[in-house]
Amino acid sequence: MSFSDLDRRFMQRALALAERARGHTHPNPIVGAVVVKDGRIVGEGFHPRAGEPHAEVFALRRAGAAARGGTVYVTLEPCDHHGRTPPCSLALLESGVARVVYAASDPGEKSGGGAERLRRGGVRVEAGLLEEEASAQNRPFFHAARHGRPFVLWKAALTLDGRVAASGRGGEAVSNELSRRVAHGYRQACAAVAVGVGTVLADDPALTVREPDFRAFPAMIEPPELRDPLKVVFDAGARTPPAARLFAPGPRGEPARVLVFVGKDADAGRVRALEAAGAEVARLPAGEGGLSVAAALDELYRRGVDSLLLEGGPRLAGSFVRAGRVDRAAFFVAPRLLGEGRGLIEGFTFGSMPKAARFLPERSEVLEGDLWLEGRLEVD
Amino acid sequence: MSFSDLDRRFMQRALALAERARGHTHPNPIVGAVVVKDGRIVGEGFHPRAGEPHAEVFALRRAGAAARGGTVYVTLEPCDHHGRTPPCSLALLESGVARVVYAASDPGEKSGGGAERLRRGGVRVEAGLLEEEASAQNRPFFHAARHGRPFVLWKAALTLDGRVAASGRGGEAVSNELSRRVAHGYRQACAAVAVGVGTVLADDPALTVREPDFRAFPAMIEPPELRDPLKVVFDAGARTPPAARLFAPGPRGEPARVLVFVGKDADAGRVRALEAAGAEVARLPAGEGGLSVAAALDELYRRGVDSLLLEGGPRLAGSFVRAGRVDRAAFFVAPRLLGEGRGLIEGFTFGSMPKAARFLPERSEVLEGDLWLEGRLEVD
Repeated sequence: MSFSDLDRRFMQRALALAERARGHTHPNPIVGAVVVKDGRIVGEGFHPRAGEPHAEVFALRRAGAAARGGTVYVTLEPCDHHGRTPPCSLALLESGVARVVYAASDPGEKSGGGAERLRRGGVRVEAGLLEEEASAQNRPFFHAARHGRPFVLWKAALTLDGRVAASGRGGEAVSNELSRRVAHGYRQACAAVAVGVGTVLADDPALTVREPDFRAFPAMIEPPELRDPLKVVFDAGARTPPAARLFAPGPRGEPARVLVFVGKDADAGRVRALEAAGAEVARLPAGEGGLSVAAALDELYRRGVDSLLLEGGPRLAGSFVRAGRVDRAAFFVAPRLLGEGRGLIEGFTFGSMPKAARFLPERSEVLEGDLWLEGRLEVD
Repeated sequence: MSFSDLDRRFMQRALALAERARGHTHPNPIVGAVVVKDGRIVGEGFHPRAGEPHAEVFALRRAGAAARGGTVYVTLEPCDHHGRTPPCSLALLESGVARVVYAASDPGEKSGGGAERLRRGGVRVEAGLLEEEASAQNRPFFHAARHGRPFVLWKAALTLDGRVAASGRGGEAVSNELSRRVAHGYRQACAAVAVGVGTVLADDPALTVREPDFRAFPAMIEPPELRDPLKVVFDAGARTPPAARLFAPGPRGEPARVLVFVGKDADAGRVRALEAAGAEVARLPAGEGGLSVAAALDELYRRGVDSLLLEGGPRLAGSFVRAGRVDRAAFFVAPRLLGEGRGLIEGFTFGSMPKAARFLPERSEVLEGDLWLEGRLEVD
């Protein structure tokens, strides 16, 4: 399949349209579409939120009769699924378009198959234009659909000598203010945020989206509606204090949603106290270095969580890294040397340099002196 | 004082000429000079090695009678000192030049004063053109003269999570091959190299200049004559094995020069065994976290060492950092995560993030995936 520069420009426009709804569409992906006739855009649309029509439908509505014989560019394969809205494949066939170009295939079992129906209906269908860009736009959605578990993003601030805190007390910022604002942007982009009980006891974090900042998302046109992520605590012994700040309502008044993972033999009285404080409690089997990471991700996926922000501390990070369940990592490296202190990863070692996890940076920027790295972790 | 673009170009030429002798001139700095008459270069020179004439003398010889009424550009203030060669100030006066422009002042007590004598002789003298570049060209020379102690460069290879080794055993490379070659370049550029006894016991390093590589020195035109640095071991208890590799002759057959710093109460028998193996042994008072770093630097300066490469391990690095005696640091950060292991700094902590040492990078390059940083350390 070969695409023209014009094809590429129309698909780029569709990708930009999709971004308008970032943060609104959960659990659906963001999707954009344009309808083109005789080299000119005659309709545009994006999927605004779950329950509303899909991007193609909005674009076709705007195009009206002009769509007939035209081309639709859409960032995700049109669905073939009667859900809360009728399938897009039917709307496309009814519109009389001659050609449909899409970027990424629909990984959903129920929703997929749209391309096939369109082909049978006589439409010329072409796939894969700017597929990588489209996949990156909805990384957690594709990941969760493909692997049946949430996409895990690990974020950490550390010194150049790999320290995340001076002691167990916590509360001291490692990175600079700009870094912290950018780091905070990851929280608003994830469906859930996870910490270990050690972090709760040391820092008493609120785990809310306090100061939304959108500079990390230059492609976003209108800021998303904000909702605090589900707060997840890994707490084998149910030691989370029922008065912890994470149980408090969010900055926009919404009640906190808290899920505490405890061990099979956690004290029943403590569990009841957590439930009384507003937490849901789920018992997990033990895994290497703590609770089973695989069981936790299964449970979160079952609850519809497609993206998890892993915030620490060092032991929880260690159990995710050893389990090979970090899909992406974001580090904020402050140009400081602390000396002895808390390590980025504790309670686990790969044991030798050749076996150490490889970090493959895909993004590297300097934020007022701090180094911001984002990329994949590769473990043998 | 204001200089023209032409002035700057001639001084840049003098700086480039100086580089031709890098590595040859110890204990003297590298210096270059050009003689200009009517806007054209009529003579060039550099100081080739200690005992040979200075840069200005070579440049004036080439210029001959053409120097009369001209300008001399020289990277260091002309000396006024009868040493192994007559003072350059006299040679300049005899040549009849009308103007002398120099970059950096001579910090030496004996050699300084040349500018003053030239002015008294009726020569127009201007100072400070490209002074920063000239100072950087001879950083250890200026530092040692100004502070009365060697310039200390700390070099370390670490993982992204701040680990320098998996365990005490050692022997595993942290950074990639290109990083290791570049790192090795620092060793050939320093008069002495220091390790702690822990590193000797774990890694048994030879501390020689094995594979000279000059890519780190792009300005160098002809490669320097090589000589292994003085090998310095910090070893309070005199535990260095007399059969350690660092006592072996260098790759070019030259006998190893080894200085072992031991504590005041180190065992006399062990000290004799080290001396029998070829080491000089010096007893030092105790300092915080080991032997006194200040006393060690005094002793090295007394022996004519103007530059010391600090190679580790974590405890020795900690005692230099806490003593505020790291003048420059070079880090090779491998994009790996090891988990638990040896830290970059051990046995010392600044205790809180705001008090942590600040690293001010002046150089930052990616070497086939590793991050190479070089800069200053700032400690409150």
